[in-house]
Amino acid sequence: MNNHFPAINLPKRLLLGPGPSEVDPRVYRAMIQPVMGHMDPLFLEILNQVQEMLRRSFRTRNAITFPIPGTGTAGMEAALINFIEPGDEAAVIVGGVFAARMCEIIERCGGKLNRFDVPWGTAADPDKIRQALRGKKIKVLAMVHSETSTGVCQPLEPIRQIAEELGALLVVDTVSSLGGLPLEVDAWKVDVSYSGSQKCLACPPGLAPITVGERAAEVLRKRRTLVQSWYLDMSMVEKYWSAERRYHHTPPVNMLFGLHEALRLLQEEGLEASWKRHRGAHAGLVAGLEALGLQMFVHDPAFRAATVNTIRIPEGVDDVRVRTCLLQRFGIEIAGGLADLKGKIWRVGLMGLTATPAMVLQLVSALEFVLAECGYKFQPGAGVAAAEKALAS
Amino acid sequence: MNNHFPAINLPKRLLLGPGPSEVDPRVYRAMIQPVMGHMDPLFLEILNQVQEMLRRSFRTRNAITFPIPGTGTAGMEAALINFIEPGDEAAVIVGGVFAARMCEIIERCGGKLNRFDVPWGTAADPDKIRQALRGKKIKVLAMVHSETSTGVCQPLEPIRQIAEELGALLVVDTVSSLGGLPLEVDAWKVDVSYSGSQKCLACPPGLAPITVGERAAEVLRKRRTLVQSWYLDMSMVEKYWSAERRYHHTPPVNMLFGLHEALRLLQEEGLEASWKRHRGAHAGLVAGLEALGLQMFVHDPAFRAATVNTIRIPEGVDDVRVRTCLLQRFGIEIAGGLADLKGKIWRVGLMGLTATPAMVLQLVSALEFVLAECGYKFQPGAGVAAAEKALAS
Repeated sequence: MNNHFPAINLPKRLLLGPGPSEVDPRVYRAMIQPVMGHMDPLFLEILNQVQEMLRRSFRTRNAITFPIPGTGTAGMEAALINFIEPGDEAAVIVGGVFAARMCEIIERCGGKLNRFDVPWGTAADPDKIRQALRGKKIKVLAMVHSETSTGVCQPLEPIRQIAEELGALLVVDTVSSLGGLPLEVDAWKVDVSYSGSQKCLACPPGLAPITVGERAAEVLRKRRTLVQSWYLDMSMVEKYWSAERRYHHTPPVNMLFGLHEALRLLQEEGLEASWKRHRGAHAGLVAGLEALGLQMFVHDPAFRAATVNTIRIPEGVDDVRVRTCLLQRFGIEIAGGLADLKGKIWRVGLMGLTATPAMVLQLVSALEFVLAECGYKFQPGAGVAAAEKALAS
Repeated sequence: MNNHFPAINLPKRLLLGPGPSEVDPRVYRAMIQPVMGHMDPLFLEILNQVQEMLRRSFRTRNAITFPIPGTGTAGMEAALINFIEPGDEAAVIVGGVFAARMCEIIERCGGKLNRFDVPWGTAADPDKIRQALRGKKIKVLAMVHSETSTGVCQPLEPIRQIAEELGALLVVDTVSSLGGLPLEVDAWKVDVSYSGSQKCLACPPGLAPITVGERAAEVLRKRRTLVQSWYLDMSMVEKYWSAERRYHHTPPVNMLFGLHEALRLLQEEGLEASWKRHRGAHAGLVAGLEALGLQMFVHDPAFRAATVNTIRIPEGVDDVRVRTCLLQRFGIEIAGGLADLKGKIWRVGLMGLTATPAMVLQLVSALEFVLAECGYKFQPGAGVAAAEKALAS
């Protein structure tokens, strides 16, 4: 590395991968409000507003609701290690990379893991889970709402029912669903849920909103042991975010300014309107892809996450060539598969700002061009036409 | 809370507390480069540059050098939990809140704590530490270089000598010193050091640069147990930051853009010029304060951190009244004392952009006005004049 470190001057990408997603200029503008002290009374008022807007986005009245100062995985870790003590039994429904990560975190904090695997690309059958866990003393039942590695949306209500039967806390990863897919933390009795700022909330990565219900808060208060992490100990972080305002760490002030504006944008649109917009964009994309003869990786439409769209890579088409061409010539980022799905699927995020007809058409038209170059056979224009028709309906 | 969440519109503060500190407009501009995918080849090149500039700032060639995706405390946690396994003996030199926090983290990760307390406001006597630890099998010796809660700068080299004698890894908190106080990670054989973005690096809070030397990396590779935290497991995070580029978590992309520019500013000035500037501003402030009859909390000038200046609150002067007046009328933030020092000291940060003659004079003149209002007796103008004289020399 030589002595020259030029200023950053990057081309504008269109981010259609599974996150980070596009960010509104209003959010960028908010992020460069001059930094403020983390105990400044005027800054604390901003925090109150962030909290209240997060509650509305999670559809909850939970007092303990705030962004963890880290990326989505920090939220996952906080959502598990605070409620699982060494020796506690925890169960995870695993259908992808992120649920598997939950298992690793549980084992690291000394939990006894009950892992319930389902084939990637499918949703779990609640009856089978019920049977597998019957009679066990499960303290935490964890699941991923929208599995960013597979594009599966696991219906929450049947799993909540099982958690109730077991007397377990229900912990739900909503990283790629909060703001984009219907989610009702209070109505569905989700005990703990966490997300990331960089998906449907359309903010840069760096914050992990979390919400903790009263039953879970009680478990936290009754711990026999200290949480292993000082940084992510919710019982302490919470004291900064509550009326007590006790200093714990210096929060990422400018990222919080950005999240405040991103949440304002969501409030302005309305949560249900946002859900509907995501569903519409997804339907348009699927119609366009299927008109090209492509297959969605998640076979059953009922279990497809509108936010993370996974596509089987057709026989004879080179994964990397397609993605490289999209990125380098069209400036469009989509992602490949993770782990066992590498080389088998593409992942297209329609989250936040990119869940719009225009973005869907941009992607489908570019994909048509690239697939044709790769020798894949289809009727030219069919994808865009079908997407447009579906988007209009 | 009503339905109205207005856009953020905060007054400009002058941040002269112990962090966050002021941020250059160039850093803000860099932060709003459009977000990029964390596996985009062009973004990965930015990461290489951030790493290399961090190495130069730490004065190290350590391969493992990058910003942890969290605030300073996340850096502290990473610097301890990766190298201490349950049952390992660790020693901490404690002279303030942040060293005490190190102790809490060590106990939470199962380390056996040897705590060496020194009166707050004084530096540790190396001979006494040597005596206290003689014959012990210490794996990690941890200390704070510049204790942000007291303003003490603990000379590093004598402690490094003790670590060598003990065969212990030396872990050093440089949160309020990196970039502002002389620090030579390689020459002083510091094994692990971490900092925060929001102090002398003059970037918003949200990143914690860390560097890990080869001896410490070897300890990490030979662990018998998994690190409790998945998020802060350096053996995994490191694989994203090395040539392997293995996905671990989605890093805070725009914060990294900001840090890149902040590091460029530091490169442009030169590290030693920055150290000198901090020392000069500190000397000016001390001269001004002493001319007003105020006393520095750290009695011995040799152990004062230039970056965090601590002042005894004079008898009869109300702590909160002074700080509130400075904040609300002058827009200047300084901080009070933490823990036992609450109500006893003020903390003034001269870090990064604020370590300049102009900032020192702004503070001293405002402080003269406020102290006079509080009935404190001194010769008007004496503080500014003395500060100016010292700054010129």
